[in-house]
Amino acid sequence: MSSVRLIAAGAGAGSDGTASVHATLVAAGVPVAGRVLVDDDEAALEQAVSGEGVAVVVAGPGGSAGDVVRRVIARVTGTRLVLQERMLAALQDVYRRRDRPLPRRAERQALLPQGASVWTAGEGEPAWALEAGRTVVAVVPPGAPSPELAHQLVEFARAFAGARPTVTRTLRTTGASLEDIEERLAEWLGHTGDDVSVATVPADGEVWVRLRARGATAEEASAALARVEPRVAAALGEDCYGRDAETLEQVVGRLLTARGLTLSVAESCTGGLLGHRLTNVSGSSAYFERGVIVYSNRAKQELLGVPEEVLRTHGAVSAPCAEAMARGICERSGSACGLSVTGIAGPDGGTPQKPVGTVFFGVAVSGKIASKRFRFLGDRIAIKWQSAQTALDLLRRSLGGVRP
Amino acid sequence: MSSVRLIAAGAGAGSDGTASVHATLVAAGVPVAGRVLVDDDEAALEQAVSGEGVAVVVAGPGGSAGDVVRRVIARVTGTRLVLQERMLAALQDVYRRRDRPLPRRAERQALLPQGASVWTAGEGEPAWALEAGRTVVAVVPPGAPSPELAHQLVEFARAFAGARPTVTRTLRTTGASLEDIEERLAEWLGHTGDDVSVATVPADGEVWVRLRARGATAEEASAALARVEPRVAAALGEDCYGRDAETLEQVVGRLLTARGLTLSVAESCTGGLLGHRLTNVSGSSAYFERGVIVYSNRAKQELLGVPEEVLRTHGAVSAPCAEAMARGICERSGSACGLSVTGIAGPDGGTPQKPVGTVFFGVAVSGKIASKRFRFLGDRIAIKWQSAQTALDLLRRSLGGVRP
Repeated sequence: MSSVRLIAAGAGAGSDGTASVHATLVAAGVPVAGRVLVDDDEAALEQAVSGEGVAVVVAGPGGSAGDVVRRVIARVTGTRLVLQERMLAALQDVYRRRDRPLPRRAERQALLPQGASVWTAGEGEPAWALEAGRTVVAVVPPGAPSPELAHQLVEFARAFAGARPTVTRTLRTTGASLEDIEERLAEWLGHTGDDVSVATVPADGEVWVRLRARGATAEEASAALARVEPRVAAALGEDCYGRDAETLEQVVGRLLTARGLTLSVAESCTGGLLGHRLTNVSGSSAYFERGVIVYSNRAKQELLGVPEEVLRTHGAVSAPCAEAMARGICERSGSACGLSVTGIAGPDGGTPQKPVGTVFFGVAVSGKIASKRFRFLGDRIAIKWQSAQTALDLLRRSLGGVRP
Repeated sequence: MSSVRLIAAGAGAGSDGTASVHATLVAAGVPVAGRVLVDDDEAALEQAVSGEGVAVVVAGPGGSAGDVVRRVIARVTGTRLVLQERMLAALQDVYRRRDRPLPRRAERQALLPQGASVWTAGEGEPAWALEAGRTVVAVVPPGAPSPELAHQLVEFARAFAGARPTVTRTLRTTGASLEDIEERLAEWLGHTGDDVSVATVPADGEVWVRLRARGATAEEASAALARVEPRVAAALGEDCYGRDAETLEQVVGRLLTARGLTLSVAESCTGGLLGHRLTNVSGSSAYFERGVIVYSNRAKQELLGVPEEVLRTHGAVSAPCAEAMARGICERSGSACGLSVTGIAGPDGGTPQKPVGTVFFGVAVSGKIASKRFRFLGDRIAIKWQSAQTALDLLRRSLGGVRP
């Protein structure tokens, strides 16, 4: 059994374009032996591609990294770059969908090592693969692969990697600390010899518990997983909100839809992040009515009717203000549910009583309003993220959203 | 000259915790030969750590990945894990700042390979390093290193890597396609022999141009960069909005501050992302007044006074609606500048006349209002991102924000 090596070339931007490709392979039971990010460093890419087994390079065809990838793979395999008509046609097709002709400079993207096969990918960007001696490599675009591309990639990886069937499950938790989760899972953690391994993965404001089952057949692996998963899930209790790729905002959307409720939000320190996460979910317009980003006190009064007296007596960062915000957004929007966030994201604005990271939340569900105070650590971005996460989680728990 | 290998263990979450560490090393002129993401795969980590030269492992001390890192490094270096009192004290200190005692289960994080030195890091989490034979490795927490940690890490890497002075510059552009930028830079791209290399990096909705200058001394490298940079910047013109780590939202904030203007936003399809990006900037409360997320038509009328007739005649996704939204948010907030976004993020809601990805923008600056139509490709998340990016860029250009 050999694993697939995943190599990201020219990632450059903040988001890691390999994550979706990684997820596609792992979901299909293809083991991935780590990811290598080579940027556009030729030497690092050459080393990464040259190893044993299947290499999957994630790189957009454009940009300097695309050039480097084509050149290095040609060199490693001792082939030369030739114009691939199928690649040219596929690229023209991508541009046609953007109502633009293929630019002259982009034509070089169709120069591929001799012997490369081109994978067209439905609506998505094309990919290509090459098998030359001991080098077996596929070059795919970053981001979520189209269904056609995912299929071709998985078949290719399976054929060459000869994977031993593996089934994975991620149980996603939020609201409990890493140590707390590890205490509850003590009987499973670190037992590397078992047919099901259990590991904890700290993620942004969450702790994921990953179960990885192996077996002689896929059925055997699934059966092993089915023996362990319910017990682990029971230990996680209501801190487990979902599994595998399901996000907290999707779970909240599912609960609102199931209960026929609408939601509006009033954000101060999260500055729009809460609305952004909620509206990342396809179909969210069915339950998300509106949001207000009330950065100034004036906006809190005008858009939510927060009483002047609350602001004067308790301040904008207070439980009474959070409750008034949640009440105000429900009344003015006519939504059944309201979520409010007000706090100090920093780096300035903290006081001894209310240090940076102090955040109050208001949750209104069908007329019942509650507030809660939290204290988060980290920089501005981290505090905003944890605040949005906590708001979503408070609503999930208020809606009784516990994984069955 | 040898490079530093950067290894991420247990990244797990979406955001790549190595990015800040990578940036810290590169900014100090330490060459980094690619990054390896090993998740918590022991074999992959063992291989990655075992190579020649300096390895920097990015891993939180907690979670299963932290255990794997400690175990693997001990094995590779033939040392055993012993309780390091300094590490224990440093961890207790981290928890004390969270007003919590160090949990029993977290004490194992102070079990380090014998001979490891502990780096305390001011307000940040501690790190550690080990030199054992040909293995030279530092283990640092993910995210932005504290100033103390950054200093120790850079000194450590310099001492062992013997770096040749390198100076890099990133010129960030938005609003022009990759091919367009490459046309303009044709005379520099791909000349790998020059003392200054120029490369294009497609980033989220942006194209970055990276200049990398090398020299016998740091002064020589800087001088080489200074010769090339102004000519490259001139070729990029007003599509270049900033350099190095400066984000588009920071540039917009800087322009608003310089001109003494305030801003409010009215978002439909971006769902809060525009406000989120604007408020990611420290000090944004000085110029950002408020935002409204008007997902429903009712909200557009109630919160912005968009005339019923505009919605009936032109629809919510139209230039007249975008202009009415920008006018409305300025009038109601009293802000000098207003930005509006209304479009179809998909996957549903498209029509032949207005397919998914059609987005209208309104920009109001001191009473002057303009609108613009764009068509973006990609999934919902990509369309939201490009929409927020375009809104920020339209405001930047309206404010005359061209890099000097």
